[in-house]
Amino acid sequence: MQTSPFLGELIGTMVLILLGDGVVANVVLKQTKGESSGWIVITAGWAFAVTMGVFVSKAFGSTDAHLNPAVTVAFAVATNDYSHIVPYITAQLIGAFLGATLVWLQYLPHWAATPDPDAKLACFATGPAIRNTGANLLSESLATLVLILGLAGISSKNLGELAIGVGPYLVGILVWSIGLSLGGTTGYAMSPARDFSPRLAHALLPIPNKGSSDWGYAWIPVIGPLIGAVIGGVLIQWFAL
Amino acid sequence: MQTSPFLGELIGTMVLILLGDGVVANVVLKQTKGESSGWIVITAGWAFAVTMGVFVSKAFGSTDAHLNPAVTVAFAVATNDYSHIVPYITAQLIGAFLGATLVWLQYLPHWAATPDPDAKLACFATGPAIRNTGANLLSESLATLVLILGLAGISSKNLGELAIGVGPYLVGILVWSIGLSLGGTTGYAMSPARDFSPRLAHALLPIPNKGSSDWGYAWIPVIGPLIGAVIGGVLIQWFAL
Amino acid sequence: MQTSPFLGELIGTMVLILLGDGVVANVVLKQTKGESSGWIVITAGWAFAVTMGVFVSKAFGSTDAHLNPAVTVAFAVATNDYSHIVPYITAQLIGAFLGATLVWLQYLPHWAATPDPDAKLACFATGPAIRNTGANLLSESLATLVLILGLAGISSKNLGELAIGVGPYLVGILVWSIGLSLGGTTGYAMSPARDFSPRLAHALLPIPNKGSSDWGYAWIPVIGPLIGAVIGGVLIQWFAL
Amino acid sequence: MQTSPFLGELIGTMVLILLGDGVVANVVLKQTKGESSGWIVITAGWAFAVTMGVFVSKAFGSTDAHLNPAVTVAFAVATNDYSHIVPYITAQLIGAFLGATLVWLQYLPHWAATPDPDAKLACFATGPAIRNTGANLLSESLATLVLILGLAGISSKNLGELAIGVGPYLVGILVWSIGLSLGGTTGYAMSPARDFSPRLAHALLPIPNKGSSDWGYAWIPVIGPLIGAVIGGVLIQWFAL
Repeated sequence: MQTSPFLGELIGTMVLILLGDGVVANVVLKQTKGESSGWIVITAGWAFAVTMGVFVSKAFGSTDAHLNPAVTVAFAVATNDYSHIVPYITAQLIGAFLGATLVWLQYLPHWAATPDPDAKLACFATGPAIRNTGANLLSESLATLVLILGLAGISSKNLGELAIGVGPYLVGILVWSIGLSLGGTTGYAMSPARDFSPRLAHALLPIPNKGSSDWGYAWIPVIGPLIGAVIGGVLIQWFAL
Repeated sequence: MQTSPFLGELIGTMVLILLGDGVVANVVLKQTKGESSGWIVITAGWAFAVTMGVFVSKAFGSTDAHLNPAVTVAFAVATNDYSHIVPYITAQLIGAFLGATLVWLQYLPHWAATPDPDAKLACFATGPAIRNTGANLLSESLATLVLILGLAGISSKNLGELAIGVGPYLVGILVWSIGLSLGGTTGYAMSPARDFSPRLAHALLPIPNKGSSDWGYAWIPVIGPLIGAVIGGVLIQWFAL
Repeated sequence: MQTSPFLGELIGTMVLILLGDGVVANVVLKQTKGESSGWIVITAGWAFAVTMGVFVSKAFGSTDAHLNPAVTVAFAVATNDYSHIVPYITAQLIGAFLGATLVWLQYLPHWAATPDPDAKLACFATGPAIRNTGANLLSESLATLVLILGLAGISSKNLGELAIGVGPYLVGILVWSIGLSLGGTTGYAMSPARDFSPRLAHALLPIPNKGSSDWGYAWIPVIGPLIGAVIGGVLIQWFAL
Repeated sequence: MQTSPFLGELIGTMVLILLGDGVVANVVLKQTKGESSGWIVITAGWAFAVTMGVFVSKAFGSTDAHLNPAVTVAFAVATNDYSHIVPYITAQLIGAFLGATLVWLQYLPHWAATPDPDAKLACFATGPAIRNTGANLLSESLATLVLILGLAGISSKNLGELAIGVGPYLVGILVWSIGLSLGGTTGYAMSPARDFSPRLAHALLPIPNKGSSDWGYAWIPVIGPLIGAVIGGVLIQWFAL
């Protein structure tokens, strides 16, 4: 069978969400081996989820390995090439849904063991530490802008060609950094696919005693990241980063 | 004396299990300096155990440095070359037994200081957070599939040749990722040798007040990883990763 | 628009302080997702803040990527070239102020949720664990000297040219090391810009129920780092590191 | 002034012990910012202390950057070249003493704030979790043997030349691994200089309310590491690693 950018984005995002939402499940569900192991575990888990998603995505044919609609939009804006938007984002949304479904399967006996419905939702979608529309939107926009600037920095022409294998690792470190430092407010979705598709999976999957999927909040981790992405893309273009 | 792939797999797996089971002993046994230091310590310890096992394995003559029968099976399926299966897996099983024995020696005064027999078994073999045959088998299969896809991604022809020294580190990061994100259910054995040989060591060694070696569970971390390995190997072949 | 060393120092320092002070906000403010997640989170956050600040700084045109007046002074002393001092330090002071302002925005709803004014100040400026002028000054000087020697070691001609992308990561590891090991006393400011500009932001921004900006202590994280920087610069010159 | 292997070993070991014993001080002394932050902090601190010690050592003229008499002995045995033993070990012992003295200065106000004399000794020298001469000696020997085999693996001719800058980082990861996994028993001294010289500093420095320097244990972290080093050196020679 044939690898392709579409397949690479799909499988890469699936692995990203399986590992990313997986670490949340490990920390917030009950009776897991990582129960209540804290923010260092959550953020390290998401960091390496990104690194591994990028490696797998590249192997399956995506040299870009965006894995995130906000990244795809930012680089479309930066390069004035909008041709990847529809196929990449489609693949990312499907991949994220499949990844979230795999998290549900991986932690299958732990859903019934966990009484708190908010903890169960947290394994799929982000939610704000303090609910405040303006502040939450700003948080997601700013975190995503730092993501885009960090990606631009890591892959900047001014540095020269990175040693092979180092790039995906550094992208993981970038996400670790943002999680540690800016994730404390809204949980650093920074990606419409990372939030929307797993939220949809939460709504559709037969999870015992689940609560609301909190669709009222769902637009913030879509619009916020897109705002940050567009600003980031404009800056990349302006400054030819 | 002569290095060889057999010796490399044996010594590398011995170092892997000494460091990997060693970190569990440090965290779960009583009166150690790392007592109850949590999931970040366990998963970091296993990650770097893999990195160091790979370096030592290569130095002792195994350019493959599989250290895990599931990895050997996956790449045999992927390449249709089954010639390494018997020698590598034999070496891995012996190495893992020796590594587990060294953990027993390293933590010698701490076995008697630890009353809980389950904690003592955990220093050798994995066990499920919630016992559920189907879910546990699925967990081990899926974690191993991600391991194989991650290895395929890191060493993918699509990336080019990794900078020297970076590969074994990234394999450790892959195992850190899986441990953080998918290890919360069954403890991510992902390897028949990692689980079976130390379990045998637990059964044979004179550990004070030890309990059952839980042989009833022992087939799951053998069969689960092999299922994931075969699926992973088929995918590598199909997509020529 | 044009990138430049000035802009690179400004934007890089802004990102550094946003991510660095951001991790403190995440850990010490109330109702955040990283509340009370401890020293490993703080120090990892600052480490990767530096790594990412350096990448962004280089992309925006600063090949030096000092991001810190003490580093600029040390290398001025080492090379007898004082031409960068005024523009770089000006850029760093402005960037640090902007970064601190972004932290305030990122954590906007959490200031009112946090009763302790000292916790709020800690998100901007450093303070001593035990107040002792001589010891605090010594602590900051010594930590900064290790920073300068570590930078000299990482970029030493004796090692050859670093693999591309590895340098900014290692600088982050250096800062992680110093934070873990020497940061326990005064919080390892090691930079006049990192401490002064955010302290000014604390004084000027409308933070609910904020306390004193502790200007009495403010000279120590300026003078201490400069002492360490000058000693470090002299050593680099003497030994041609 | 002139750099030299002697100076490189001295300054590198000084930095190693300042950062290594420094992290212990941060975690075990009272009223520090890292108080009681646990095993992940201790082991990460020692890991990066080694990485940074190696970088600084190389910059000051030691291409070997052993920083540890056990490493010097192991490679002397491996190569049948004993010419470095006296100068390197002399430099390492002096450097370690100076490093320990700097830790005392860095944490100056915290010694009086800490009532427990054992905690104060732990900032200088290692001690056993459970006192048992045979087991403690075995622990130190085995940990050091893994250190030597890991170093041989990382620098093995079988791997090719490491990407520049990656080697010192990987040596730090090796020490992190050993600390996490094997350090739970005796605190992984693995080096006569790391233990003896700081213990001497503890005995000589005016530390308020200090207790015994526990000289009765002091021979174990000297002899144990040397046993592991000789076995490791013989294995490197036998197998031409």
